[in-house]
Amino acid sequence: MVRVSFIGAGRIGQTIIYATLMSGAIDEAIVMDIVPNVPDRMKDELMHALSAEGINTRIIATNLIDKVENSDIILISAGKPRTANQSRVDLFMDNARIISGFAKILPSKNPNALYIMVTNPVDMMASVFMKYSGKYTISSGAQVENNRLRSFIADKLGVPVNSVNGYTGGEHGEGLSIFWDTISVNGRPFDDIAKGRLTREEVSAYVKGIAAQIIGTLGGTSWGPATTMRDVIVSIAKNEHKVMSIAPPMKVKDEIIHVSRPTVVGNPIGPSIEKSLSDEDRVALESAAEKMYSEYKELLTNFERTTS
Amino acid sequence: MVRVSFIGAGRIGQTIIYATLMSGAIDEAIVMDIVPNVPDRMKDELMHALSAEGINTRIIATNLIDKVENSDIILISAGKPRTANQSRVDLFMDNARIISGFAKILPSKNPNALYIMVTNPVDMMASVFMKYSGKYTISSGAQVENNRLRSFIADKLGVPVNSVNGYTGGEHGEGLSIFWDTISVNGRPFDDIAKGRLTREEVSAYVKGIAAQIIGTLGGTSWGPATTMRDVIVSIAKNEHKVMSIAPPMKVKDEIIHVSRPTVVGNPIGPSIEKSLSDEDRVALESAAEKMYSEYKELLTNFERTTS
Amino acid sequence: MVRVSFIGAGRIGQTIIYATLMSGAIDEAIVMDIVPNVPDRMKDELMHALSAEGINTRIIATNLIDKVENSDIILISAGKPRTANQSRVDLFMDNARIISGFAKILPSKNPNALYIMVTNPVDMMASVFMKYSGKYTISSGAQVENNRLRSFIADKLGVPVNSVNGYTGGEHGEGLSIFWDTISVNGRPFDDIAKGRLTREEVSAYVKGIAAQIIGTLGGTSWGPATTMRDVIVSIAKNEHKVMSIAPPMKVKDEIIHVSRPTVVGNPIGPSIEKSLSDEDRVALESAAEKMYSEYKELLTNFERTTS
Amino acid sequence: MVRVSFIGAGRIGQTIIYATLMSGAIDEAIVMDIVPNVPDRMKDELMHALSAEGINTRIIATNLIDKVENSDIILISAGKPRTANQSRVDLFMDNARIISGFAKILPSKNPNALYIMVTNPVDMMASVFMKYSGKYTISSGAQVENNRLRSFIADKLGVPVNSVNGYTGGEHGEGLSIFWDTISVNGRPFDDIAKGRLTREEVSAYVKGIAAQIIGTLGGTSWGPATTMRDVIVSIAKNEHKVMSIAPPMKVKDEIIHVSRPTVVGNPIGPSIEKSLSDEDRVALESAAEKMYSEYKELLTNFERTTS
Repeated sequence: MVRVSFIGAGRIGQTIIYATLMSGAIDEAIVMDIVPNVPDRMKDELMHALSAEGINTRIIATNLIDKVENSDIILISAGKPRTANQSRVDLFMDNARIISGFAKILPSKNPNALYIMVTNPVDMMASVFMKYSGKYTISSGAQVENNRLRSFIADKLGVPVNSVNGYTGGEHGEGLSIFWDTISVNGRPFDDIAKGRLTREEVSAYVKGIAAQIIGTLGGTSWGPATTMRDVIVSIAKNEHKVMSIAPPMKVKDEIIHVSRPTVVGNPIGPSIEKSLSDEDRVALESAAEKMYSEYKELLTNFERTTS
Repeated sequence: MVRVSFIGAGRIGQTIIYATLMSGAIDEAIVMDIVPNVPDRMKDELMHALSAEGINTRIIATNLIDKVENSDIILISAGKPRTANQSRVDLFMDNARIISGFAKILPSKNPNALYIMVTNPVDMMASVFMKYSGKYTISSGAQVENNRLRSFIADKLGVPVNSVNGYTGGEHGEGLSIFWDTISVNGRPFDDIAKGRLTREEVSAYVKGIAAQIIGTLGGTSWGPATTMRDVIVSIAKNEHKVMSIAPPMKVKDEIIHVSRPTVVGNPIGPSIEKSLSDEDRVALESAAEKMYSEYKELLTNFERTTS
Repeated sequence: MVRVSFIGAGRIGQTIIYATLMSGAIDEAIVMDIVPNVPDRMKDELMHALSAEGINTRIIATNLIDKVENSDIILISAGKPRTANQSRVDLFMDNARIISGFAKILPSKNPNALYIMVTNPVDMMASVFMKYSGKYTISSGAQVENNRLRSFIADKLGVPVNSVNGYTGGEHGEGLSIFWDTISVNGRPFDDIAKGRLTREEVSAYVKGIAAQIIGTLGGTSWGPATTMRDVIVSIAKNEHKVMSIAPPMKVKDEIIHVSRPTVVGNPIGPSIEKSLSDEDRVALESAAEKMYSEYKELLTNFERTTS
Repeated sequence: MVRVSFIGAGRIGQTIIYATLMSGAIDEAIVMDIVPNVPDRMKDELMHALSAEGINTRIIATNLIDKVENSDIILISAGKPRTANQSRVDLFMDNARIISGFAKILPSKNPNALYIMVTNPVDMMASVFMKYSGKYTISSGAQVENNRLRSFIADKLGVPVNSVNGYTGGEHGEGLSIFWDTISVNGRPFDDIAKGRLTREEVSAYVKGIAAQIIGTLGGTSWGPATTMRDVIVSIAKNEHKVMSIAPPMKVKDEIIHVSRPTVVGNPIGPSIEKSLSDEDRVALESAAEKMYSEYKELLTNFERTTS
């Protein structure tokens, strides 16, 4: 029996819920969103979809965070999306307020849940949630960027995506680290096979820039990231032991932060396998972690000042 | 090798494309939409999603209907959605213009394709497409209503949806016929088991009214209908022989119209199994067909007048 | 919650159990066989296999028919296999004794179960079980022959098997009827497309003779038939409504017999769609039914004489 | 396009082939066995099974090792099974002769294949094949023992198998190492949760002894190991990055040997994650590796003496 609760049923939340339930790996789902009727109508849509597949997942719809209980996994996508003119600081402040609020409420009724953060800025929000809840939390991190990396290389070189390997890590988004030495195509190193056909710069530009392009055209990313989240949830629920670039907790100095690196995703999460990275890739990861610590620490200090 | 082309990548189109490709049953997909960049960015999102699943489906993105070629299946969801104040007549006129346009272009480069209509009013648009293309066309019809019927009864009676059976037919939407004698719960007839707990009126009100409620809250239906379309496509592509309430062509007087009834969905489509319905259910189906013929004939005549 | 009980864990029984549980559609399985330790060791093997897939199906192993209870579906493969020199009459007598024994024991603890017969001669054993138990029983019938028909034609014509359609029926085995008018390749009738490349005689010889060849070389058929049984069980458990050539009960004169014909397999079973067959195919089905009645009636009378 | 060749279609080979093809992840399969008609009849059975699932995998049946070509993956299960009175030395000698023979033939027509060894003694046969072929080879190793470990603990403690984690390694079979510090149940360490209910000795006895019990009762193990092999193949073909206890090559002194440890299974294989093991578990792994080197070196020297 696996019960997964979804906090937030907006564009990305809905897509995650749909993709996850269609996997058939979940016995019970709680759909929580504060907008009246949205959880109920989403439940209707899901029931229609699942009945088409012969999947009997039980769905509970609620507007109340208090009704989220006895969960094995809680995925949080609620919060504000970044608006065009909003600074990163403002987004942090807005969503940290929401996320730290959830952190005070959810643990008492969900003491054994594993928490997965999706709300942006995702790695920092995972750290905020874990700080205020005291509960083990992961950020969905850079796994969607692994998929962007691999599919772009496959498309450009004209090979099936299953022939392309490679990990990213560090920070989800524009601060991403690409672990170049992990990239291979049919077992051959990236630089060998890409020579004269594809540069590191082109790969990096795509992986870091494609989300903005999709948002510009489609109004938001959903299918790619939601499928990634589904994979994280299913790999935990079925204990599949898939290696993904999620961000589990990492102690840096006085704070727990969330830094993506290849990690075994099962029940429980771990281990991370950064020890297997090349020296160069490991340096990139470590410098990302330091940078992420500094930024997080500064924003957190601001946030604590405003809320105390 | 199965190549499926999707004409239209709006809200419902995108969801159908995603759900279908995630099934892994399709070797190649063409995503066509006239809005600049939408097919390309949808291709990006799909590549990211499929790479997460190890699915190698090849995707072609295009703004040009001429690039849609050599398809085995073409699903058409392009057209205008019904706006709040728009009459049914106006919707017919607007979309018939679009659909009859496609009908003149698509067949020459896709001579062996099976055409599936999703654009509303869906049954009539299937008939328009078939009339102007001369190609075998089905309407996705009332299958989503089968799923709404079964999941509502399961939810209200507290049983798994797999225990509930039942078909709908006639016209997709408010003119729907429910074939009451086909409904059973764990093998027992509906009236027996529902007695004192659930009335025919409640079931009918839900099945016919839930779409409007979902549209009102979520801005449109997508997850339920898209999953149904995915099932239709997969059942054809894998020749699964699932019985669904789609609308294959039916000759009534001088026109081919599209009336939903339980039909074996495989390669090819058919047979329909209306002969196995009870007398009462068959009467409901026949009277729906007559009504649909009259309405279609009138709208078609109008349309032909305006276009000649 | 779906509980499926398997009576018999020999070669074919084991393969059916494995294929069915790997589908993930079953919540609980009872494995019953009279050979000491076989159910327990089969349970071990299944646990190892399911854990690899993240499937949590609960398995109960027993040597005692009395421990088979509260089943939703019971599949019976126990009984003697036909030996080289054994007459059909002798096989009927031996297995009717076993099957009628089960029929007296199983219903009281499994009052709501759907019974599926696999033991040979399969159609007659289904009738024996239903007669002595009073419970709704189906024979897995000729569905495996549908798959043999379709895959042979696909292989010979060099097309994907999903392009080939066609039903068989009547009696499972050498008395099989092939419904020629239902066969098509990419929608074209068999005789058109096969002309000069493949004859009806070749198809018929393969479909009726391949089982004996497989038994001669591999010691028994298992992968093909077991996959078919798995499909029957899953289509019921998930209420998939797939049309298959199974044999549901058919009243002929004073007896209920089991004659294969295309039938919607869901929860419940039915309807059969023989009304949609061509006149010629329907004549073949009816003459098969008559012949099956006569043979069954004679063997049954013998059996009743020896047991009274 | 993924082409997988299977050398050997005996009891375990057939089960692997069936389970793998049913996954739908393989485009083409070559079934090779020296026994006349076995590949052809196995092809028939597989075609019947796949057609039931709508899977179009192309199958080539052959008695000739020369016809095995252009493979992406080659799985070798051919060879003699261990008979009751046979010494390990004799089994090594018999199968090393067969495997080294394949090693001289297969690479020229399959230069880019990844080789997976299943023939016993499996880890040593992988090393023999790699030595004589010069091609990258893995042993399926101890992954089946991971599944036995996890399912036994789940069964004894009455929890779903997905809640249990844990890796084994070293040598497949009686020389297995259990990595006790990796075992957890719902995230709690084994010793904590098992206290008073289950001992390390009981777990160890089951994991190392159950194969012999299954062989004694059922005549051989098949369902458990075959499902594991299927997972290895599918994780490579779909590049799933699942962590499994397979045995990739490991240089020890002057030889490449095969020692199981948790390893990322994708395309390509690796990395192994033994660096993440606890000190105690790593010591167990290292001492297993040393012992395996010594035994292999001695048997290899014998073998080379007899064949030179």
